[in-house]
Amino acid sequence: MNLTVVGLGLIGGSLAKDLRSKGIAKHIIGVDKNPDHCNKAKELGIIDEFQPLDKAVANADLVIVSVPVNATLKVLTMVLDLIDDKTVVMDVGSTKSEICKVVENHPRRKNYVANHPIAGTEYSGPVAAIEGLYDKKTTIICDQDKSDPKAVLLIKVLHEAIGMHVIHMEAEEHDRHIAYVSHLSHVISYVLGKTVLEIEKDETNIFELAGSGFASTARLAKSNPDMWTPIFMQNKKSLLKAVDEYQKNLQEFRDLIAGDDEKALYNEIGRINDIRRVLEGLALKRAQGN
Amino acid sequence: MNLTVVGLGLIGGSLAKDLRSKGIAKHIIGVDKNPDHCNKAKELGIIDEFQPLDKAVANADLVIVSVPVNATLKVLTMVLDLIDDKTVVMDVGSTKSEICKVVENHPRRKNYVANHPIAGTEYSGPVAAIEGLYDKKTTIICDQDKSDPKAVLLIKVLHEAIGMHVIHMEAEEHDRHIAYVSHLSHVISYVLGKTVLEIEKDETNIFELAGSGFASTARLAKSNPDMWTPIFMQNKKSLLKAVDEYQKNLQEFRDLIAGDDEKALYNEIGRINDIRRVLEGLALKRAQGN
Repeated sequence: MNLTVVGLGLIGGSLAKDLRSKGIAKHIIGVDKNPDHCNKAKELGIIDEFQPLDKAVANADLVIVSVPVNATLKVLTMVLDLIDDKTVVMDVGSTKSEICKVVENHPRRKNYVANHPIAGTEYSGPVAAIEGLYDKKTTIICDQDKSDPKAVLLIKVLHEAIGMHVIHMEAEEHDRHIAYVSHLSHVISYVLGKTVLEIEKDETNIFELAGSGFASTARLAKSNPDMWTPIFMQNKKSLLKAVDEYQKNLQEFRDLIAGDDEKALYNEIGRINDIRRVLEGLALKRAQGN
Repeated sequence: MNLTVVGLGLIGGSLAKDLRSKGIAKHIIGVDKNPDHCNKAKELGIIDEFQPLDKAVANADLVIVSVPVNATLKVLTMVLDLIDDKTVVMDVGSTKSEICKVVENHPRRKNYVANHPIAGTEYSGPVAAIEGLYDKKTTIICDQDKSDPKAVLLIKVLHEAIGMHVIHMEAEEHDRHIAYVSHLSHVISYVLGKTVLEIEKDETNIFELAGSGFASTARLAKSNPDMWTPIFMQNKKSLLKAVDEYQKNLQEFRDLIAGDDEKALYNEIGRINDIRRVLEGLALKRAQGN
């Protein structure tokens, strides 16, 4: 198929790489407002050529919109305005409600499949694109009833071909869940990064002492603001609810320490250790490729 | 040398493995109140034999106390009571002030070297012990002036032989810094685990959606309460200060999202991205073995 990727970053670039290596994408056209990204993506062989948006989508079988979620609102509408009925369009955004809402009444709505592959790293740009990023991960197709069933099937098969497990969900439910298992993790990691950077101003060489635990917990604090600021804004309602619950739980945990309530703290940590079930179930599931 | 390891968990077990594989420990005696740990450590070849504490330390050149920090207060005193002047003793606790205080006036204080190797995983027990755990990591020797210089030199050389970088610090400074770069990370990870487990009660299969970001941020929530409850208690003062600053920063970050202050949020995340310098400096330093 002829593939057009709008937004040549980690997510779009990695999709292009996998779809080419699986023999699915025969010719790949890139679009990016940043000319350095266009040149770099071509140099790395991620795309065959780059073009302005209107030319790039003219002969596309599939258009992947992989730009930050605020830009997606505009770009997705522009793409749907440009295509004819043979072209399928998908996005990759970490929020779904606002994106689905903005194209709700578009005459080409049925050509669009709302999609969120749950994969990534804390890096960005075409140099961060890696083959195999999606292997054994999950993608979520949202509001499938609003898309042409053949378009949904195509998107499903494409993701399965690159090793992904496909699930379906309503956009609102997606945003509510992702607030907890992804967006909240980013918030608390950013705040950890800030807190430790602040203390470093007074305490030189504090990072000499940082171990793998800190590196793991603060990893997401490296994630870039172009991508994450609009995600937090678009999922504000669900995210704030998650942050409020987190704050309440943090205060209670703090009170157990402050109150010397050793036994209660011990029991609380023991209950939290149940997270092993989740994390190890996740790891096992992925190893088995389900 | 004859090595005695009191506490056959991840930390003590891994030290025994490395010291044996480097040819330093010729005979290793284990002590553990849990008979299963004794049997398992012997079966795994971590120790040559296990004995009660008094017999185990009688002919030891070095005694490593690697039990939870509340137990260290008692066990360290017992070991110092039992040894004669030829034996060196070290601990591995993640807190240092209270441990140093409890043996401050012990007649064998000079035989003891207060030590904290910054390494570990979220697992525990002798089966979790792994060779090479300490390679390219840092250990901190505290209050070295209170130890015999020859004992300090021995501990330094031992750690360097297993690939570690050795630094020196006062116990109080250690505890203040470690509150930020280790203990705080554990608190926020535990609270993330709790928050997401709570929401799971209402939202089945939410973990289908969890990606590598959540796994990374919640990893430390698997850490066991036997080790972490007494650490939080012993370092309460410094840890609560760190938690308070974290809470203030979290509230400010929340306010930026709630107030739709997109530009300020963008700039804040941009500044926090400076944590890359730290985390990548750390990774580079370790790869180079400095």
